Amino acid sequence: MEQAVSVAELRRWVRDVPDFPKPGIIFRDVTPLLAHGPAFRTTVDSLAAPYAGAVDMVLGIESRGFIFGAAVAYALGAGLAVVRKPGKLPADKIQAAYELEYGTDALEIHRDAFGSPTRVLIVDDLLATGGTASAACELVERLGGQVVACAFVIELTALGGRRRLAPRPVLSLIQY
Amino acid sequence: MEQAVSVAELRRWVRDVPDFPKPGIIFRDVTPLLAHGPAFRTTVDSLAAPYAGAVDMVLGIESRGFIFGAAVAYALGAGLAVVRKPGKLPADKIQAAYELEYGTDALEIHRDAFGSPTRVLIVDDLLATGGTASAACELVERLGGQVVACAFVIELTALGGRRRLAPRPVLSLIQY
Repeated sequence: MEQAVSVAELRRWVRDVPDFPKPGIIFRDVTPLLAHGPAFRTTVDSLAAPYAGAVDMVLGIESRGFIFGAAVAYALGAGLAVVRKPGKLPADKIQAAYELEYGTDALEIHRDAFGSPTRVLIVDDLLATGGTASAACELVERLGGQVVACAFVIELTALGGRRRLAPRPVLSLIQY
Repeated sequence: MEQAVSVAELRRWVRDVPDFPKPGIIFRDVTPLLAHGPAFRTTVDSLAAPYAGAVDMVLGIESRGFIFGAAVAYALGAGLAVVRKPGKLPADKIQAAYELEYGTDALEIHRDAFGSPTRVLIVDDLLATGGTASAACELVERLGGQVVACAFVIELTALGGRRRLAPRPVLSLIQY
């Protein structure tokens, strides 16, 4: 049996990959954290525990958010809703655009993703500028859901994502 | 508290969407199953239970396989390895190609995704022709891993995926 891992130790399993996806960017790679059973368990439990009994659904953002969101939903006994890139979801859906460094992208959610009112926990791997999570919040709220909080494994604090998501509560486990 | 759901009932939460992604195709949409907490829990538990204590890692295939794979890994207390579409993984990796109806696609895995020997459970949402899962098996085996089984929520039995993955064991919860 491998030893349990504390939240404070989690950053040991995040790998810095320089110059990915382009020169000058340090990519925070969570695949070593996923691969380590006790570190993955601590991550999921720490994202889930503050919201036990307080959310009806978890929303996972494609595609690393699917990983953490699904496990958090399972841990909470909640259902999972998904937001995806355009064209992936098969049924009736709504869309929200968000800005990238150059141009825009968009996210979609099924119109029947959840009933109203629903308390929703949004989960993704990384909070940077908050553009993606903000679009996800907008989709939830347009469908009548209440965003209880946005929970991230990693937060890049200098990029101001937390301010952008305010007044919605933000949880992150590892800060850079 | 919502009532527990049996494996035999799970297909009630799979939605048939005609003509997606193109005319003549019936898309088996699992988003209603994900959204229903008890159905999602039964799905994950049923994929995980046969392998308790028998696998070291779960491998999730991008991107619906991330959802089920991550929750199964969490349920088993195992780590999660991921295979992704080309260009998504940041570190040193290997690739396997597979055929589509027209042309080919490929999957990649980090070269250090797991130590050797490692017992691996491959998880995806749907088994059709088995091309994707077969490529994932190839990647695991090239890295020295042992594929304990391939586990799917849905199997389209007429498409022969199970034969293609033989002699590796295949589990599926819902058959069409």
